[in-house]
Amino acid sequence: MNELSIVRLIRSLAQSRAPGVVAGIGDDCAILRPRPGEDLLLTTDFLIEDVHFRRGTHSGADCGWKALARGFSDIAAMGGTPRACLVSLALAPWTGAGWVRAFYRSLNQLAACHNAAVIGGDTSRAAKLACDIVVLGAVPRGRALRRDGAKPGDVICVTGSLGGSALGLASGKAPALRRHLRPEPRLEAGRLLRTRLRATSCIDVSDGLALDLHRLCLESKVAADLWGPLPSFPGASLEQALAGGEDYELLFTLPAQRRLPASVAGIPVTAIGAIRSGKPGELTFAGAPLTPRGWNPRFS
Amino acid sequence: MNELSIVRLIRSLAQSRAPGVVAGIGDDCAILRPRPGEDLLLTTDFLIEDVHFRRGTHSGADCGWKALARGFSDIAAMGGTPRACLVSLALAPWTGAGWVRAFYRSLNQLAACHNAAVIGGDTSRAAKLACDIVVLGAVPRGRALRRDGAKPGDVICVTGSLGGSALGLASGKAPALRRHLRPEPRLEAGRLLRTRLRATSCIDVSDGLALDLHRLCLESKVAADLWGPLPSFPGASLEQALAGGEDYELLFTLPAQRRLPASVAGIPVTAIGAIRSGKPGELTFAGAPLTPRGWNPRFS
Repeated sequence: MNELSIVRLIRSLAQSRAPGVVAGIGDDCAILRPRPGEDLLLTTDFLIEDVHFRRGTHSGADCGWKALARGFSDIAAMGGTPRACLVSLALAPWTGAGWVRAFYRSLNQLAACHNAAVIGGDTSRAAKLACDIVVLGAVPRGRALRRDGAKPGDVICVTGSLGGSALGLASGKAPALRRHLRPEPRLEAGRLLRTRLRATSCIDVSDGLALDLHRLCLESKVAADLWGPLPSFPGASLEQALAGGEDYELLFTLPAQRRLPASVAGIPVTAIGAIRSGKPGELTFAGAPLTPRGWNPRFS
Repeated sequence: MNELSIVRLIRSLAQSRAPGVVAGIGDDCAILRPRPGEDLLLTTDFLIEDVHFRRGTHSGADCGWKALARGFSDIAAMGGTPRACLVSLALAPWTGAGWVRAFYRSLNQLAACHNAAVIGGDTSRAAKLACDIVVLGAVPRGRALRRDGAKPGDVICVTGSLGGSALGLASGKAPALRRHLRPEPRLEAGRLLRTRLRATSCIDVSDGLALDLHRLCLESKVAADLWGPLPSFPGASLEQALAGGEDYELLFTLPAQRRLPASVAGIPVTAIGAIRSGKPGELTFAGAPLTPRGWNPRFS
């Protein structure tokens, strides 16, 4: 396959028609028409062979789903709605047309579930497969849920369960493995956190509860105490729940007086701690200091 | 360097303040506020070690400049103005903090020249360095210069000179080498092609004149005859001018009756052929069939 034939294949598979898309794949740039009164959200996420996935564990369909789900999860964490995505794919020598087809079919399926269009990207080759996804989303002007709004006294809450993805990767067994391979971005829950619960801050749990809570606290210039027990995925260890990462649940804060419902958009929610003043980013768990560990690859 | 320290370094270097940027690096997504009456342009481009650059030829500063210049060139080809970019960088084992600093300083310098902000990205590691750039630009509503507007009878024109980048890569000598390492995106020329010359179509010469003209003709469903001589860079061969690629000049079409000025935004422009009806994408050069060759990497 050469670049022209790859682009032809991608174009035949991509769902590029959606409201607001003036031009999709096929020109120097894609053209989008923003709606009045909306802010735009932009996020980009790598999915790289032997860093974020392994050929033996992840099929082309798993990779396509997961690449986009990670970007959608960032949009969910801002309380937004995904509108469009661009998919850059550098193919390895082992990647054939069948893999590319499975990748795009699965990615398009997730995009279509949320009425988002695939409007462009780039293709190349590389020694190991590398994918980079850009997702463009929207939120009513000035209303994005941010990391920097947590206040001392706020309750810390999380959607769903933690540690399932790490358990699935370690055990290779269903149902935990499905959590690792096909995460469900919490888009509807994110919008309800913004509109109904009026959360003060939010982040998605992509790199592990401890590390992502640390990041939220750094941006909000606060410290946090986790109480436990955590809403662990059945069978997941405490370490997997605290630092496993890739759960793609939403970690958010609410003023103490606000009533927490049992679930949001059908996903259970659990209060797991409280924000306090202190050294920004400092964490405790069950009364002891907690290291902000998780997915944090070392470079050289 | 771990991910947090890379992000801290990038954040300290990035010029993320610009009109319309509500939030830059530091949250799940960047937030942008679009201006009324504008369409958005989106493009993404890989820069991968041993595919698009080599460590021995390109410094960190060259890579930063070139990565962004390629995206800006796509915005130029639509007659647009760049507003913001996101930079995803997967570092190789050999990449140190000095390389990353030089990369971002140079990238920021080009961004600042055009009042564009660096508002986000992703970091990772990989066996070979991989960069993916997203550029978001703007153009008045419905006015983007596209590839699909060329009509039989239109004159084919090009800005600047061709083959300099390929000559520079082959010879390793100035001034051609500078064309390869530090291309100047033709942003002002692109805007004038849209507003003053009212070009009917446009594409940037990134993969070679023959291949990019072929692509423009495919989108416009027309054929094209090139006359020669081409405006070659001094010392460049005909093959380098026809198929060398990476010149980042603008290839555009004008109705035959429109007067072509000698230069646009200070860049010389030359008429090099004409659009005709025929098999879409079919090309001739000096009366003989021309294969649409250029930069077109084979995948496995």
